[in-house]
Amino acid sequence: MNILKSLFTYRNVKILKPGLICDCNRSYAVASPPHLEPGLFKPQKVLILTKLSRYEYEKRRHPELTEKQLEKCLSLRGSDYNNLLYHHYIHKGVENTVNSTFAAAGIQTRVIYRFDYTDPNIEWADAIVTTGGDGTFLLAASRIPDRDKPIIGFNSDPTRSKGQLCLPQKYSVEVQEAIDKLLKGKFRWTFRRRIRITLIGDDIFKPPVELHNQQLQYHEYRYLDMEPQLRNVDEGLPPCSETGMARRVLPVLALNEVFIGECVSARVSYLELSMDNVKGIKQKCSGLIASTGTGSTSWTYNVNKLTDQNMEEILTIVKEETGFKIKDTDEKFVRKITETFNEMLITNSEAPRMVYTIRDQLVTSPLRGECIKPRGISKSISVRSRCFDASLVIDGGLSFTFNDGTRALLEIHDEDALRTVTLQGDVTEVVFKH
Amino acid sequence: MNILKSLFTYRNVKILKPGLICDCNRSYAVASPPHLEPGLFKPQKVLILTKLSRYEYEKRRHPELTEKQLEKCLSLRGSDYNNLLYHHYIHKGVENTVNSTFAAAGIQTRVIYRFDYTDPNIEWADAIVTTGGDGTFLLAASRIPDRDKPIIGFNSDPTRSKGQLCLPQKYSVEVQEAIDKLLKGKFRWTFRRRIRITLIGDDIFKPPVELHNQQLQYHEYRYLDMEPQLRNVDEGLPPCSETGMARRVLPVLALNEVFIGECVSARVSYLELSMDNVKGIKQKCSGLIASTGTGSTSWTYNVNKLTDQNMEEILTIVKEETGFKIKDTDEKFVRKITETFNEMLITNSEAPRMVYTIRDQLVTSPLRGECIKPRGISKSISVRSRCFDASLVIDGGLSFTFNDGTRALLEIHDEDALRTVTLQGDVTEVVFKH
Repeated sequence: MNILKSLFTYRNVKILKPGLICDCNRSYAVASPPHLEPGLFKPQKVLILTKLSRYEYEKRRHPELTEKQLEKCLSLRGSDYNNLLYHHYIHKGVENTVNSTFAAAGIQTRVIYRFDYTDPNIEWADAIVTTGGDGTFLLAASRIPDRDKPIIGFNSDPTRSKGQLCLPQKYSVEVQEAIDKLLKGKFRWTFRRRIRITLIGDDIFKPPVELHNQQLQYHEYRYLDMEPQLRNVDEGLPPCSETGMARRVLPVLALNEVFIGECVSARVSYLELSMDNVKGIKQKCSGLIASTGTGSTSWTYNVNKLTDQNMEEILTIVKEETGFKIKDTDEKFVRKITETFNEMLITNSEAPRMVYTIRDQLVTSPLRGECIKPRGISKSISVRSRCFDASLVIDGGLSFTFNDGTRALLEIHDEDALRTVTLQGDVTEVVFKH
Repeated sequence: MNILKSLFTYRNVKILKPGLICDCNRSYAVASPPHLEPGLFKPQKVLILTKLSRYEYEKRRHPELTEKQLEKCLSLRGSDYNNLLYHHYIHKGVENTVNSTFAAAGIQTRVIYRFDYTDPNIEWADAIVTTGGDGTFLLAASRIPDRDKPIIGFNSDPTRSKGQLCLPQKYSVEVQEAIDKLLKGKFRWTFRRRIRITLIGDDIFKPPVELHNQQLQYHEYRYLDMEPQLRNVDEGLPPCSETGMARRVLPVLALNEVFIGECVSARVSYLELSMDNVKGIKQKCSGLIASTGTGSTSWTYNVNKLTDQNMEEILTIVKEETGFKIKDTDEKFVRKITETFNEMLITNSEAPRMVYTIRDQLVTSPLRGECIKPRGISKSISVRSRCFDASLVIDGGLSFTFNDGTRALLEIHDEDALRTVTLQGDVTEVVFKH
């Protein structure tokens, strides 16, 4: 913990009056069973899902190597052994502190890696805690099928990742304070809305592919444990709708976003989209991203953000066209407009709406009827694949086949929300336009 | 041809004085051998690579079905049989006219589908002609290894595709005029620059994957014929550079663009980029697109274009911040700025430079040294993969493995240019800022 304290400066946390937070979110509140009311919530058993650090991962991958040999092997690949070790210790420090702090409060804990993140362990626990980054949190959330199991994330390496889904960074150091607030009811539940996906078509029961297997970024994030659960779907008769086509509600909810499109980046995607009440319009694009409010700070944000470079060029053109004059320096003005634009991309994680983006949309001819804007908000989205080799990808991790003729329905339902925590005195989000 | 004439209105072609065109491009001119000088160029043998229409493709795919059965089968998949037939006839009309017009001029022709687009046929021909869309043109160009074999593209269905790479749309009707101009020397060569790719690393001799196999969009575009050529590279010793790592210049040049990144769309890509003299900066993004001038109207354009929607929102913010007033209606003003911005994205196909785009770039910390702008121009680009399962994709068609540790060098060389035609009185591009 010394390493962390010496490195880490607390980010300024915007504090609103508790009443104001509640007001903002009153319309999105979801009822809680009595034992989950803040103040009455007293978990006896906590499952701690901890990240497999990059260092641990490499050790397991090369069990036959000594430390010195491992250092050399990593160096040949352009990786820094000392750096890996350093971050490993930071992570372990946070994990140990979280574990011992819960134990000191008289709570039973089990600390597990992803390989043991199984249904029996999840059922045993009153709450799931993660020590890792957003990847670990996403993995944990993926096996929580409804809003009745709370999940709390500790960012175990704030020097490395922002940890949007975890508690604010200060609690990576102030673990005691976080757990005190939790056990004393000094928090409210934040119901992060998730997207439910229904597939309709012929080829919808194939087991999905898991994308994160050994990826450097989220290498702690594997769905392999889910495969038995998903494979069993092949057995028995698939349910049919009136049209005779099979329907399947996927057993995984999207916490960040659903991507739909050709799974190979360089291929053009053809999709027919229907938003709320606008009926099927054929799109030629690089795919569709349907994001929750949670996901609006993630991939969707990076796809849609305005860059300083673009704003500079736009400003130059506007000045040439109109002789427009500004008081600030160009640089300051550009920064201001860019920031304002980008802030508006972030939406409330509790609002029951999706933000969608049609990537690199080729503008459809106005003669062909109503167009769909490249970016917007929708309560429900229906997509029909006209693709060759496409996928429906959930949270960048689980990839389902989605080829020509298959349909997907994306919706948000209250019962699918993820029950997470906002501790008293903190805010996760401030003001939203929508 | 009647169908086409009745449907099609000629696009206004901007005409510059021939001298002015030459001046713009004098600095990019490439010397021609005597027999290729306009006026002296008299092809005796022309190979016509024709598109396999969607209708023909479906017929071959379902040889056992009658016409009525095929119509029903397509309808179940949401496709329109009559529409397919209609476009098939338009295409065949142009193909037949091109063939007969060359024949009437005393020129030997061979009309082939992609399956017969082989080296012997290419060597036989004095010039390659395509009747199809941009996909057919790209396929034809992919087997022309240097600047000595001319290629001319006829857009065989201008109702359907813009055909950026083909002759202007009017020549789909005025075939005779086009061929007259060609044979009378009333044209100049346009040398479309292409990107040469060198791979350096361990795993660089794997045969590539061909992406277009049965894709609905460019289904006429297959590299399968190339596989023997590419597989042979495995035999014999790979050449080594001084560092001992294998080097390989790929046998395919990029006419549009090179995409480098995780081949699965939903994955984050880690790349180390060096542009001209800026040394390796690690990028976290959705991939890199390095585009030629030719490619700057294609995928790159759609990735970078400013949408009316974004410009509207920017205008709203600017007005709120500054009280900015404009004379035009908002809509007109937005359109004007957007168009001006987007026009600047298009670069000269003959300029020996690449336009690069770093997709969804996560901004690197300024503390880590010089940043690379998300979009810019470079004469040469060096990329090192820090990816898990990435590809280097040429013209959206051929995909080479590009995993952690592998390097790629992208360059433009005069000898790699593609020799295409600009007929007298037409322009392919007008004014360029760069």
